[in-house]
Amino acid sequence: MDVIAQLEERAKRTNEAIMSYLEEGENQKLLLAVQHYPSAGGKRLRPVLAEVVAQAVGGAGEKAVPFGAAIELIHNFTLVHDDVMDNDSMRRGRPSVHVLFDEPTAIIAGDALFARAFEVLSEVDVPPHATRRLLKLTAHTVWLIAEGQQEDMDFERIPPTELAISDYERMIWKKTAVLFECAAEGGAIIAGGTEEQIDAMRDYARSLGAGFQIHDDILALLGDEKTTGKPVGNDIRNGKRTLIVLHALQNLAMDDPRRAILLEALGNKDATLEQIKAATQALQDCGSIDYARETARRHADQGKKHLEVLKPSAEKDFLAAVIDYAVNRKI
Amino acid sequence: MDVIAQLEERAKRTNEAIMSYLEEGENQKLLLAVQHYPSAGGKRLRPVLAEVVAQAVGGAGEKAVPFGAAIELIHNFTLVHDDVMDNDSMRRGRPSVHVLFDEPTAIIAGDALFARAFEVLSEVDVPPHATRRLLKLTAHTVWLIAEGQQEDMDFERIPPTELAISDYERMIWKKTAVLFECAAEGGAIIAGGTEEQIDAMRDYARSLGAGFQIHDDILALLGDEKTTGKPVGNDIRNGKRTLIVLHALQNLAMDDPRRAILLEALGNKDATLEQIKAATQALQDCGSIDYARETARRHADQGKKHLEVLKPSAEKDFLAAVIDYAVNRKI
Repeated sequence: MDVIAQLEERAKRTNEAIMSYLEEGENQKLLLAVQHYPSAGGKRLRPVLAEVVAQAVGGAGEKAVPFGAAIELIHNFTLVHDDVMDNDSMRRGRPSVHVLFDEPTAIIAGDALFARAFEVLSEVDVPPHATRRLLKLTAHTVWLIAEGQQEDMDFERIPPTELAISDYERMIWKKTAVLFECAAEGGAIIAGGTEEQIDAMRDYARSLGAGFQIHDDILALLGDEKTTGKPVGNDIRNGKRTLIVLHALQNLAMDDPRRAILLEALGNKDATLEQIKAATQALQDCGSIDYARETARRHADQGKKHLEVLKPSAEKDFLAAVIDYAVNRKI
Repeated sequence: MDVIAQLEERAKRTNEAIMSYLEEGENQKLLLAVQHYPSAGGKRLRPVLAEVVAQAVGGAGEKAVPFGAAIELIHNFTLVHDDVMDNDSMRRGRPSVHVLFDEPTAIIAGDALFARAFEVLSEVDVPPHATRRLLKLTAHTVWLIAEGQQEDMDFERIPPTELAISDYERMIWKKTAVLFECAAEGGAIIAGGTEEQIDAMRDYARSLGAGFQIHDDILALLGDEKTTGKPVGNDIRNGKRTLIVLHALQNLAMDDPRRAILLEALGNKDATLEQIKAATQALQDCGSIDYARETARRHADQGKKHLEVLKPSAEKDFLAAVIDYAVNRKI
């Protein structure tokens, strides 16, 4: 299955919806700022997930489009604020919002995207009691994302040797997987699924999110800057405690020279390209990148098991293919 | 009527509710950051407004407490982000969130307060269709606040002589009055008010918000730093286009030396205390502060007219007293 082509095809409705929600407003600068990331594309994994799950569970794909768009707006709000906090200057091959405009405008644009997402949520075509459930789910998800982002930053100040892999897992669950969960769970709620189906879709998305994030960390190290649109090596410069880094530090002997090479570059804002390359090579040589690949693969296999609650359909097959794609993609 | 004492008395339930909504979370640093402003007090005008309106309209004051708390969390979220953007280092007599922690934590804390507000909104005890209406109202309000904040910043880059008083009025409506409107309108919705009552409560709150903000601008110039908890003169240093400044520039002749004194300090980050004092004196001498006082007073009188839809009650009297207080307070 050509997942990318299908994702693009399935994202068409969503793209129109997303942009239509960003047209109304009185301040032109703010409108341009909120449109900047959504109009640059992106994979639209989250909104497509909401739609496909709703279709697979109860043939309600179309009804889930506004909800999916709301989730994508939330995703974009977090990107705008993350880029300010991490001081990342590029996103999707374009200058970040805070670079193109300024930092205050980026903070406001993130807030405005967040607000618009909840406006859209109020328009989702479901029985009123389901609106309340979607609201609670989505709002709590954003709280967890905030915690995940805070933990990610806190971790940068903790010696990486003191962090356990379970700390990393909890952090990426919050930072990444919960929004996938929200998309899938919401899609199942909109489709009027049983509690068993709703739970299974959430669990599927949890595995998808974990696999996706671990693979993202790999791409940030080995990916092609032109393809990913992000500067390679920034995670090392920013001292991100990824699964790869934690695994390496747990497995490299104290006197292994690769350990020193890694620690020299990690969190060193002035690390040269040579130092970044050497650290990446060290992570590769000691098997930590392979370990991360295997872990992502394991999440994908686990996720697919949760799809068993679904009747056979093109959407069920697509969900299985998406999780494989998430841990194999180049972008 | 002792409005301050009544505000304090009526805010007790709200205070407990607000803090109870900020106890749950896994990240201690984030919890401390989100609690920092709410725990420092504040007038609680917005949540009390929601409660008192709900009580006056339909005896539903208690039912409006969670909604009022949600509005106060939103208010605090905007304060946290505003202080980052304006680089204000003090709030309510304490260091700002971004000073006490750091800028990224402040951005996240604002987002988290915003998220928690919408979680609380999902728990408001109203018929499900009213949840949807409250959600739409509140989310759209936050969008308008973002526009107002953006306009406030945009204005700093526009020569103050090119701005009309109507520009200022639109900006403060969004930046300040819409959240008062949301509190009052929401309170009336929760109480099951008629559309006429809901409209009247919103219009009352619009006048309250306008009067409140204009008086706030006066306090920022003339207030006592110890009482207001904010550094006096910052609005001039930041080049804020307040009603007072716009009125002065429209009325001072081109060759009036007070015009030069004002323009020298306005937006001058390095303005000395002497320059700030001279500019403030110029604003006073040319009658612009009196003009602002009269305008705030007019808003208060207009607002009280909208209370006529209410039956006589202690709450109705309190709402009338609150609007007088808003344009006369020292803090």
